[in-house]
Amino acid sequence: MENKTYEFGLVGLAVMGQNLARNVAHKGFSIAVYNRTPQKTDEFVAKFGHEGTIGGAHSPEELVNMLAKPRKIMFLVKAGQPVDDMIAAFLPYLDKGDILIDGGNSHFSDTRRRSKELEAKGFRFLGVGVSGGEEGALNGPSLMPGGNEASYKEVAPIFTAIAAQVADGPCCSYVGDDGAGHYVKMVHNGIEYGDMQLISEAYFMMKELLHMSDAEMGDVFAEWNKGLLDSYLIEITSKILKVTDKETGKPLLEMILDKAGQKGTGKWTSQEGLELGVPIPTIAEAVFARGMSAYKSERVEAAKQLKGPEGEYKGDKKAFIDAIHSALYASKICSYAQGFALIKAAAKEYNWNINFGDMALLWRGGCIIRAVFLEDIKKAFERNPQLNNLLLDPFFMEAIEQHQAKWREAIIEAKRFGIPTPAFSASLDYYDSYRRESLPANMIQAQRDFFGAHTYERIDQEGIFHTEWEHELK
Amino acid sequence: MENKTYEFGLVGLAVMGQNLARNVAHKGFSIAVYNRTPQKTDEFVAKFGHEGTIGGAHSPEELVNMLAKPRKIMFLVKAGQPVDDMIAAFLPYLDKGDILIDGGNSHFSDTRRRSKELEAKGFRFLGVGVSGGEEGALNGPSLMPGGNEASYKEVAPIFTAIAAQVADGPCCSYVGDDGAGHYVKMVHNGIEYGDMQLISEAYFMMKELLHMSDAEMGDVFAEWNKGLLDSYLIEITSKILKVTDKETGKPLLEMILDKAGQKGTGKWTSQEGLELGVPIPTIAEAVFARGMSAYKSERVEAAKQLKGPEGEYKGDKKAFIDAIHSALYASKICSYAQGFALIKAAAKEYNWNINFGDMALLWRGGCIIRAVFLEDIKKAFERNPQLNNLLLDPFFMEAIEQHQAKWREAIIEAKRFGIPTPAFSASLDYYDSYRRESLPANMIQAQRDFFGAHTYERIDQEGIFHTEWEHELK
Repeated sequence: MENKTYEFGLVGLAVMGQNLARNVAHKGFSIAVYNRTPQKTDEFVAKFGHEGTIGGAHSPEELVNMLAKPRKIMFLVKAGQPVDDMIAAFLPYLDKGDILIDGGNSHFSDTRRRSKELEAKGFRFLGVGVSGGEEGALNGPSLMPGGNEASYKEVAPIFTAIAAQVADGPCCSYVGDDGAGHYVKMVHNGIEYGDMQLISEAYFMMKELLHMSDAEMGDVFAEWNKGLLDSYLIEITSKILKVTDKETGKPLLEMILDKAGQKGTGKWTSQEGLELGVPIPTIAEAVFARGMSAYKSERVEAAKQLKGPEGEYKGDKKAFIDAIHSALYASKICSYAQGFALIKAAAKEYNWNINFGDMALLWRGGCIIRAVFLEDIKKAFERNPQLNNLLLDPFFMEAIEQHQAKWREAIIEAKRFGIPTPAFSASLDYYDSYRRESLPANMIQAQRDFFGAHTYERIDQEGIFHTEWEHELK
Repeated sequence: MENKTYEFGLVGLAVMGQNLARNVAHKGFSIAVYNRTPQKTDEFVAKFGHEGTIGGAHSPEELVNMLAKPRKIMFLVKAGQPVDDMIAAFLPYLDKGDILIDGGNSHFSDTRRRSKELEAKGFRFLGVGVSGGEEGALNGPSLMPGGNEASYKEVAPIFTAIAAQVADGPCCSYVGDDGAGHYVKMVHNGIEYGDMQLISEAYFMMKELLHMSDAEMGDVFAEWNKGLLDSYLIEITSKILKVTDKETGKPLLEMILDKAGQKGTGKWTSQEGLELGVPIPTIAEAVFARGMSAYKSERVEAAKQLKGPEGEYKGDKKAFIDAIHSALYASKICSYAQGFALIKAAAKEYNWNINFGDMALLWRGGCIIRAVFLEDIKKAFERNPQLNNLLLDPFFMEAIEQHQAKWREAIIEAKRFGIPTPAFSASLDYYDSYRRESLPANMIQAQRDFFGAHTYERIDQEGIFHTEWEHELK
């Protein structure tokens, strides 16, 4: 056992853990690390020990004894049971007041449960969303810390130092109690699913309606990346379209199988939207689209038999690319409006005091959805911290006003020529629903009252009403 | 305590329980009933005892002692903890081999858990989906029994007698093991959400685009009810549109507040679709639409500020009504295709041996989604019991072929004039996605590989690949 006292402990040396540990060391903090397999710990210290003050521990007890009190230990292990198991392995050696930090992809409800359990035992617990992948973990992730605010403040110097830095400051600020950090990370990922699906639909329209080459599309995305859509995902899309497959000489993208995988956070987000009754159809359609992509063999069969419309798009190419751009931008606004509305509803449901402007800033750098766009969102919440929906902010209202005719036109042509655009369509229907004082839900209430006596309210007076519909007709 | 031995026991005398008990008695079976509040039991026996052989019990023990062995006891209590509590109250008095039946709206995962727990103790357990509301419970519900098949056979004479009867037989047949019955009931309800939303969108298009009166729309739905769409929900829609509000003299429907309630089964269905990776966007959009309707006060605000397209629809009214009809029919096919695909995936996931043709018949009568249409579904699964998706059946393929141009036209006009049609749109995008050999998910895989090294497959060779995208560009 070493005699030195370290400032920070980290458990779990898979790639994310390794890179976060190195990031902490690079910023001048001393760090002790532990992995279940001692060999992995030794290899890590041997390989990266020179990058800072890094010590290795071979047991939970040893790690605990290497740390300054109150101890700050961050866990980067697989979500689910492994987190509970690893925490349990440390508990016997900890003192009350020590701070445990879960930096994995835990479901927020697990984080809420663990907060309660650990705080009842006198320990402190933070659930921190970490975004940015391996690269971000090493060079500056977006960090979304949740839990007790005073506890967060004790680790804040380390977290703000290792986070991505943008003009407005570090991409790390306190989100809210217990599961709030993991919740916001979950919604971040849901929004990421939406962004990726919307970009894919834009690509597909250019490819299928306009028959553009990948290189040509790459130029379009590169151009878009200089304007309203300036973002990491648009940037990598433009790059992806330019890569040539060495084996065939064709664009590599076109050699990739159209079966998209998923790791579950988009699914969680959509399930939560349903749970809280918050419509997030763009995000849900993005998740369903990945599911649909997985039915590859059925689709191959279906393609031989199911017919679509015939004919070719004959309109102006440049104008139509512009329409797709508008569709992508306006749909993206709707998608973020949904994500923020979900967080707003969650804040109410789970008693979190969330600063939405700060949250937009958290995503300004370091993470996959980083974009200039998020500054406009930040400003919207500065103008009105209580904003119910992004669509009600003057800037976004004006943006949609300006783009909506082209947005509609792009979707109309897609429907006419049979190009699937589930996320574009869901976004427009979201907009057209949200801006309606009256929706046809009166019919649904009438039906429910007819067949199940579920009652209804009226538009002209208070109260709960029921009608014997059949009787009224006699 | 009475000396008579009864054939069937029923626990829980809310309206559903009362009506089911009377239904059992009407069919000539002797039945003993129990409610937690003894007064309610006494009142029930006093009021309906003359309708058959009905006995009342004042305690679980008394009910158990009144029943022939093996006992058959059906629970109709509130889903969730009350079911567990009530079962626990009976267990001490039961013998091994007794059959407990949950006829409530339990989540299928609870039914799976209870099956396992009770069978481990030597009892037998059935989870039975009951649809048709109060009216159906009394005069013939649709019954969806799940659990051990041999156990089901012992109660089958009673169940098939009380179920709705259609030309092909009773709307009751064995579904599959443990939670299969409640699962199928859940999806039934999800499909019901889809049907109701689609009808509402059809109504809204006639109202907003064609400015038709409620009476005129009532005539249209009545006409539709004679054709392809012949169903209970279309029938009641036509009736609803004809009812006049006594207070204002206006159509009652237009006085009903457009805030739709929900009891959770549509939500469960959508969450399950997400869980199993099965796209069911029409159903999910129907659930989200109810959520959106609940944001009434926000929508009232939004309506003052957010702009939509201007202009009036100038096309031929009769032709457009026909286009809406096609949109409703084709979207309905897609919605049912999604529901059946979900059940198919669930059968695989949870090891249920489900006969899909029989399932369609279960819904032919007694329940809310009863429709002539279900006979076409039954025939599709007779032609091919392994059918992967309804869209691949020749009848439905031809149906969509015939209606798709009008379906597209209806949606295109809705988008042009800003009428929200989330379920129509989701259905068309589902169709256009399913019939595509290639979807743009290759872009999503490329992005995931770019930012997270998630790897991809290729279209031209086996294996898992990763590209250093940035490096390829240099």
